[in-house]
Amino acid sequence: MKDTFGNIFRFHSFGESHGSAMGCVIEGCPAGLSFDLQLLERNLQRRRPGQNNLVSARNEEDQPEVLSGVFEGKTLGTPIAIVIRNQDQRSKDYEKLPNRRGHATDVWQEKFGHSDPRGGGRASGRETVARVIAGSVAEMLIQKLSPETKILAWTSQVGPLSETIPLQDWPQLTREQIDQNALRTPKANKEAEALVLRAKENGNSLGGEAQLAILQPPKNLGQPVFHKLKADFAAALMSIGAVAAVELGAGAQAAIQEGLDFHVAQSEAVYGGIRGGISTGEPIHFKISVKPTSSILDVAKKGRHDPFLLPRMIPVIEAMAACVIADHLLWSRLDRIE
Amino acid sequence: MKDTFGNIFRFHSFGESHGSAMGCVIEGCPAGLSFDLQLLERNLQRRRPGQNNLVSARNEEDQPEVLSGVFEGKTLGTPIAIVIRNQDQRSKDYEKLPNRRGHATDVWQEKFGHSDPRGGGRASGRETVARVIAGSVAEMLIQKLSPETKILAWTSQVGPLSETIPLQDWPQLTREQIDQNALRTPKANKEAEALVLRAKENGNSLGGEAQLAILQPPKNLGQPVFHKLKADFAAALMSIGAVAAVELGAGAQAAIQEGLDFHVAQSEAVYGGIRGGISTGEPIHFKISVKPTSSILDVAKKGRHDPFLLPRMIPVIEAMAACVIADHLLWSRLDRIE
Amino acid sequence: MKDTFGNIFRFHSFGESHGSAMGCVIEGCPAGLSFDLQLLERNLQRRRPGQNNLVSARNEEDQPEVLSGVFEGKTLGTPIAIVIRNQDQRSKDYEKLPNRRGHATDVWQEKFGHSDPRGGGRASGRETVARVIAGSVAEMLIQKLSPETKILAWTSQVGPLSETIPLQDWPQLTREQIDQNALRTPKANKEAEALVLRAKENGNSLGGEAQLAILQPPKNLGQPVFHKLKADFAAALMSIGAVAAVELGAGAQAAIQEGLDFHVAQSEAVYGGIRGGISTGEPIHFKISVKPTSSILDVAKKGRHDPFLLPRMIPVIEAMAACVIADHLLWSRLDRIE
Amino acid sequence: MKDTFGNIFRFHSFGESHGSAMGCVIEGCPAGLSFDLQLLERNLQRRRPGQNNLVSARNEEDQPEVLSGVFEGKTLGTPIAIVIRNQDQRSKDYEKLPNRRGHATDVWQEKFGHSDPRGGGRASGRETVARVIAGSVAEMLIQKLSPETKILAWTSQVGPLSETIPLQDWPQLTREQIDQNALRTPKANKEAEALVLRAKENGNSLGGEAQLAILQPPKNLGQPVFHKLKADFAAALMSIGAVAAVELGAGAQAAIQEGLDFHVAQSEAVYGGIRGGISTGEPIHFKISVKPTSSILDVAKKGRHDPFLLPRMIPVIEAMAACVIADHLLWSRLDRIE
Repeated sequence: MKDTFGNIFRFHSFGESHGSAMGCVIEGCPAGLSFDLQLLERNLQRRRPGQNNLVSARNEEDQPEVLSGVFEGKTLGTPIAIVIRNQDQRSKDYEKLPNRRGHATDVWQEKFGHSDPRGGGRASGRETVARVIAGSVAEMLIQKLSPETKILAWTSQVGPLSETIPLQDWPQLTREQIDQNALRTPKANKEAEALVLRAKENGNSLGGEAQLAILQPPKNLGQPVFHKLKADFAAALMSIGAVAAVELGAGAQAAIQEGLDFHVAQSEAVYGGIRGGISTGEPIHFKISVKPTSSILDVAKKGRHDPFLLPRMIPVIEAMAACVIADHLLWSRLDRIE
Repeated sequence: MKDTFGNIFRFHSFGESHGSAMGCVIEGCPAGLSFDLQLLERNLQRRRPGQNNLVSARNEEDQPEVLSGVFEGKTLGTPIAIVIRNQDQRSKDYEKLPNRRGHATDVWQEKFGHSDPRGGGRASGRETVARVIAGSVAEMLIQKLSPETKILAWTSQVGPLSETIPLQDWPQLTREQIDQNALRTPKANKEAEALVLRAKENGNSLGGEAQLAILQPPKNLGQPVFHKLKADFAAALMSIGAVAAVELGAGAQAAIQEGLDFHVAQSEAVYGGIRGGISTGEPIHFKISVKPTSSILDVAKKGRHDPFLLPRMIPVIEAMAACVIADHLLWSRLDRIE
Repeated sequence: MKDTFGNIFRFHSFGESHGSAMGCVIEGCPAGLSFDLQLLERNLQRRRPGQNNLVSARNEEDQPEVLSGVFEGKTLGTPIAIVIRNQDQRSKDYEKLPNRRGHATDVWQEKFGHSDPRGGGRASGRETVARVIAGSVAEMLIQKLSPETKILAWTSQVGPLSETIPLQDWPQLTREQIDQNALRTPKANKEAEALVLRAKENGNSLGGEAQLAILQPPKNLGQPVFHKLKADFAAALMSIGAVAAVELGAGAQAAIQEGLDFHVAQSEAVYGGIRGGISTGEPIHFKISVKPTSSILDVAKKGRHDPFLLPRMIPVIEAMAACVIADHLLWSRLDRIE
Repeated sequence: MKDTFGNIFRFHSFGESHGSAMGCVIEGCPAGLSFDLQLLERNLQRRRPGQNNLVSARNEEDQPEVLSGVFEGKTLGTPIAIVIRNQDQRSKDYEKLPNRRGHATDVWQEKFGHSDPRGGGRASGRETVARVIAGSVAEMLIQKLSPETKILAWTSQVGPLSETIPLQDWPQLTREQIDQNALRTPKANKEAEALVLRAKENGNSLGGEAQLAILQPPKNLGQPVFHKLKADFAAALMSIGAVAAVELGAGAQAAIQEGLDFHVAQSEAVYGGIRGGISTGEPIHFKISVKPTSSILDVAKKGRHDPFLLPRMIPVIEAMAACVIADHLLWSRLDRIE
């Protein structure tokens, strides 16, 4: 019933996978912001399937149309509506397939009594295109209000294969560099790519893990209790389909530690850039675990199929992060009397 | 600025640790619900410090006063305001202490320019008393609308010591049994208790992990995109201070798996009772990781001090879970036209 | 920043008058509702300009496109996005005109620093097309849940000329009959039509008054304090441009009365169908006063110009009424525990 | 279910007339605002019954207790909870009385199935004490952010007797002066007072009208469509029990006018300080019509009884106005990118 994200900078998402269009309405973006259409198109392009042989072959142009809220290259302060047509609606691929274990089709049918079976309807990963739209506008806002801030996500684990980038090397990472690798790992990883190809051939799929880093973030973001910055991030990230775990800073590793080690011996990085629910200005860091996609066996072979979800999910993670940061950046204007 | 949790069943929390009172206003509770004051008092009692030598010695009676919304033992459909006086306000303990690394005092001061240093003000764990109040009312609602549902949390890890209860044994667990163990482990765990006592003596602290299980939950709870049941749980749990990771079902373990194993070879339990964002009726299962408290060294020795946060956090986790379930139970009344 | 109306059944409106499209996203409409496209098109047609020589000559087809939320003729429970293209974008008419006294252009420019001068941008009456879209879906919902309910508005005053329909005759009124009259008066009124034509020729305009009646409305709608049904109606109606007064039942006449007359001697009609903020089941009745449009003098002669706003505003008033009723109909599902 | 008012500066109201306390939780008030307890007490005193022989004799001290959100005389940026005990709970007066025509008791009982008959429960005018609390904090905020702004309401009509103060004399009006008159008319009005006394003796009551003026208001307040400043004022004022009509500027008089007169020949005052939904900086002006109270006949003689509601409603009208202005003052911080 309510597909709204955010409090001050907020957006309303809509669209079924094989309906006529996807999109969102963004409220709360101040007037006078330069609207960077290239940035939006670039992010959509990054999320688009069919970029290489490791991700879904669905052919979508994903050309955004800005319906309102922007005039002569600047935001008007009014709602920004942006839509993308669904062009490649081959619903037949899915229609003949049996129910997929772990997939949402049956639960949605039971909940609503009436559902759209074409390509998963609103339960499809296609809904994430609206997140990328809103996240791109959020990014425009962040670039203006906090130009030094950099939001980056990457694949850190592919099934059993993991790879760690030391914290001190994060500032050298760029989206361009990550995008060059088929799996959006920080460096090309042939072993992992082979693993994914093999899964695809076998009608198998793989889970994985992503890192989200926000470098030089604004400080003082977050609200005391239920909108602690970490809580809004957890909601944002866990709302993405297939995400099974969200960890801040040291995350689950914190559970096995002693306080003297954790707080004294280790670096500030264990806090993941958020203390007392508020950003400290240190790099914000989350880990996100993703379960293997349920498109396996015959489904994997017949439909368009991503054996490994993370590469296309990276821009979605960044988009949700941008929405949280933009929301709290504006929110912090209300913190003090002057 | 906004300390509201929930959408349909929602509450507004207030109170500073050493101010005059803590409390909340609950909106959206339907009229005609029997108000179980004993349940509320029992839950508050379970959260109360000073229950044994392993938890903080702060002496609070935590007697709730219902100011509105209840008449002759039933809810009126109007806002339910409940307050608890802060009685033991020994702020001096904290005032002379140096800033604690990992604690929120400094970030709040910087954010708001003006903060309440007494016992952490609103950043104190004392705020969780309002969660237990709201969660207790949520529990009354759940008992009425879905009487077979059981919400249980327990300590599954104390620093390096972990203990696993097989899924099939969960239905035998009870709150009473868990409460008998000082650390709220499922069974008495002398080794873990000794570890915590030693930490306390050394001015040290310990991280840990809790399990949250909702047995025989209502099905069809959750909304399609941003209010997937798992997203609202993630926000609810991550909003609790010191929580560093939230995992659904197989959680981070899902990341290293293959789809054929995950979806075919394993049991439904890997999904944690939520698929496509919607509850399936299977047990709902989350893991919550908690970092070691920042009250270490001199702070630990002088102030009232919990070397291990989880025992007192268990009722808070259950309370937040109840709020999420109650919210979505009512929300699901709006799913279909009839 | 926030163009959202409603709490449970709610919609987000967007679009500038001479931008590419207008529309809205409707959230909270339950699944399984038959979607009556004809009803939507009929209502849009009724709002459309150019229906006769008394209203604006702007030629818009106003063909709605349903982008999401509806599948095989039924709502899915997901957000319903509907857009209408702006086709006749002759912004030049307005661009050369001086600032109009009483119009919004200058205040919006000052507020936002950047505004869309084309046809008034978002301040244009064209925004009401989104209200009619949402109101039409609300009407579908009301027809299903409370089929006997009838929502009707009509012009009761044209400048100095007023006409009263006795309460007992309201049940005989129909939209079809009212629509046959150029000014949407209950009966044809040649004198009033002549007055409007003369105003148009003279570059003058006229204020007026509308009646809103909801016959056989659902009872028990409304919430205790800030969402009394009358408060939500007042917000809904006063949010329409040019509306200067909103009166419930006896309205301003109530101010000069004595209680014994008002409550005892008179009929229940003085309450306008709402007591204690809640609908009683009696006809709901509001009066709405509209100031004369600010498109006068040269503006009136050069641009497309309505010398009298009410005829086109009638479907907008009905639409907002439908949104309020639909919102509270769903809301009332949450009133009681069972 | 939802007794929340406002969007940015917002408050949650609670309390039944004869329950243990009334109060509210205010969210969104920035940190660092000097908290003026005297202002709060003064406003509560002004709303209090029993000030003279023309208003209800209920004896309430209405001493506010600030439970949270304020420390060392300044707001903390955290929720501000303030309660007032109900002391004089003579519910018997009402219990034996028959249902009052025009009163809310029966509709609430039917809606919720369970209601509080004592003194009207939440339907009682006593709920307005929470509005005065929130409005007082709003006033503190306005005094800081827009010190020249003055919010004033007064009784302009008592049953059939009306009295007009020319616009140019408004700046000379003060609350102190208005408060000196038993009916809160601008000048002492013996004829009107006699009318009210006679009504009281006869078990009769009187309707009336109030003027609300905001002098030197901030400009640029209001949002484009559904939160036009006039819409939020209409909701705020119409949410007060017994209010039957709300008019902006020329109000219902605008309906009978021609545009050339209205926009050209007359002064800016016809717009009531709001154009295009946005405040222009000119005085904001509303008229509010109130129906005669339903406490008539035997009820009037036995219970505590106000034959004329307006004198005690004046501080409530001012409070709601302050809440709207404070909300939009903060909201306007979000209008522009910088």
